Amino acid sequence: MDYFAGIEAGGTKFKAIIAQDPASVIAEEIFQTTTPEETLPHVVAFFKDVSIKYNIRIVAAGLSCFGPVDLDPNSPTYGTITTTPKLAWRNYPILKFFQDQLEVPIAFETDVNGAALGEGRWGAAKGISDFVYITVGTGVGGGVIHNYKPLFGMTHPEIGHMKIQPHPNDPYPGNCPYHTTCLEGLANAPSLSARWNADPETLPDDHPAWDFEAFYLGQAIHNLILVCSPKRIILGGGVLKRHGLIEKVRIESVRILNGYIKTSYLDTIDEYIVSPELGDRAGALGAIALLKSDTR
Amino acid sequence: MDYFAGIEAGGTKFKAIIAQDPASVIAEEIFQTTTPEETLPHVVAFFKDVSIKYNIRIVAAGLSCFGPVDLDPNSPTYGTITTTPKLAWRNYPILKFFQDQLEVPIAFETDVNGAALGEGRWGAAKGISDFVYITVGTGVGGGVIHNYKPLFGMTHPEIGHMKIQPHPNDPYPGNCPYHTTCLEGLANAPSLSARWNADPETLPDDHPAWDFEAFYLGQAIHNLILVCSPKRIILGGGVLKRHGLIEKVRIESVRILNGYIKTSYLDTIDEYIVSPELGDRAGALGAIALLKSDTR
Repeated sequence: MDYFAGIEAGGTKFKAIIAQDPASVIAEEIFQTTTPEETLPHVVAFFKDVSIKYNIRIVAAGLSCFGPVDLDPNSPTYGTITTTPKLAWRNYPILKFFQDQLEVPIAFETDVNGAALGEGRWGAAKGISDFVYITVGTGVGGGVIHNYKPLFGMTHPEIGHMKIQPHPNDPYPGNCPYHTTCLEGLANAPSLSARWNADPETLPDDHPAWDFEAFYLGQAIHNLILVCSPKRIILGGGVLKRHGLIEKVRIESVRILNGYIKTSYLDTIDEYIVSPELGDRAGALGAIALLKSDTR
Repeated sequence: MDYFAGIEAGGTKFKAIIAQDPASVIAEEIFQTTTPEETLPHVVAFFKDVSIKYNIRIVAAGLSCFGPVDLDPNSPTYGTITTTPKLAWRNYPILKFFQDQLEVPIAFETDVNGAALGEGRWGAAKGISDFVYITVGTGVGGGVIHNYKPLFGMTHPEIGHMKIQPHPNDPYPGNCPYHTTCLEGLANAPSLSARWNADPETLPDDHPAWDFEAFYLGQAIHNLILVCSPKRIILGGGVLKRHGLIEKVRIESVRILNGYIKTSYLDTIDEYIVSPELGDRAGALGAIALLKSDTR
């Protein structure tokens, strides 16, 4: 039978999946993201082993990759990872690697656009034309979907790097190597560890860490609403697994907007700012959704 | 002969124009924005007087209006101004007024989208699919154009109200009644007057006022690039008439981005961040451009 390979190339881990859709997953596997030389052969071996074991054929693959990546098919560096702080991956031609190894057509997108398209096709934004998917983990990123397609202009958005205001009581200076105090620099998981000198998972639900986090994510949502006016915002990633955090973010977003934007979407804020529905599979399934969408 | 009426309903002044395009302007006039009862009859009288004087027929009108406005044709309040701080205009059904008075089909947009479409059709963004038009005056607003159309999701963007970081040496608290320290609250013309206790026009070109202004506009451009990735940014409005300011903004934008986004567009920053070309006519001509575009 004919199946699709979905690859989510994340900054912390790779996820590989073989499926036609969420209801037909044959196999899935997670690999640590170390270096291209170490990580990528494991992914290829997984696809080859599973194909033989289940006697299936992989007819196409979707690759959604951490970025920034070059998404312009006319560029000589199309399919490479560009200015990432992960030095081993900088300028790495990841699309070409999988094309050479898998020998099938491969659709290519950012990791966050892939996850967004997965949620749009099968998850928390099904049927919604305009939405943003935000993920908060080691990095902070997002996919901006407009008219069912990833927004793309001079390049793809990198919403995690927008500038926002530090909390007046936050002494932490920010950790983004490019922008210090952008959203990622103030609200990623490493900032939580460094600010409170603790593993974030050990902080209780009522720790002020989560108020700061909600303050930053609320500002980011405010800015997203004012710049691209999504009809829904999906807020996921490891940090959002914290019990009660999304509720705090909803409250902060409404507080910061302060009634300036009036639409029926904002009347039901718990349907406007929502959790992902595909869980850890969003990225890899999203890579398969890529194959089913005309995304450019 | 058949002509179009263009109406730019601005927060400070209305501009009315009768033309087919920038090369065929029959007449134009400016009116102070006071109250609907006082301002609007002057605009209607202008169109009627000119039509008789030149023996022309106005066959359609474009209305580009300060906002926020309700742009959803299915909404019961379509064509009204909504949460503006200008109390006399709040909830005013401006589209209906002109429909009743002019008795021609009227295209309706935000003032900034109108100006953006004018610049896109005849001015500084001719032929560019994705760009942002920013205007800095009494208010700060902008039109986000994607695939040649105004970006529209849950409503239209209101980029002037994004949150940005106050300059560390700026004691001014911000003046936005909704968000205090958003872009508009920190960088509009009234903030310049209040911060320096002077008419901004009297400040010399080398006054630190313009460094602060460039810091704020540079951050806004950074955020726009990271959220909607335009291929060009047009920076206009009264404040940008200051000699040398756009050059400072270019430098600040590049400094804040800090090399994170690499595209050929940013290699020539003076072609990336540009001045408008239609001058004070952009809004009113843009209203006419509305009639020539399928903008939704």
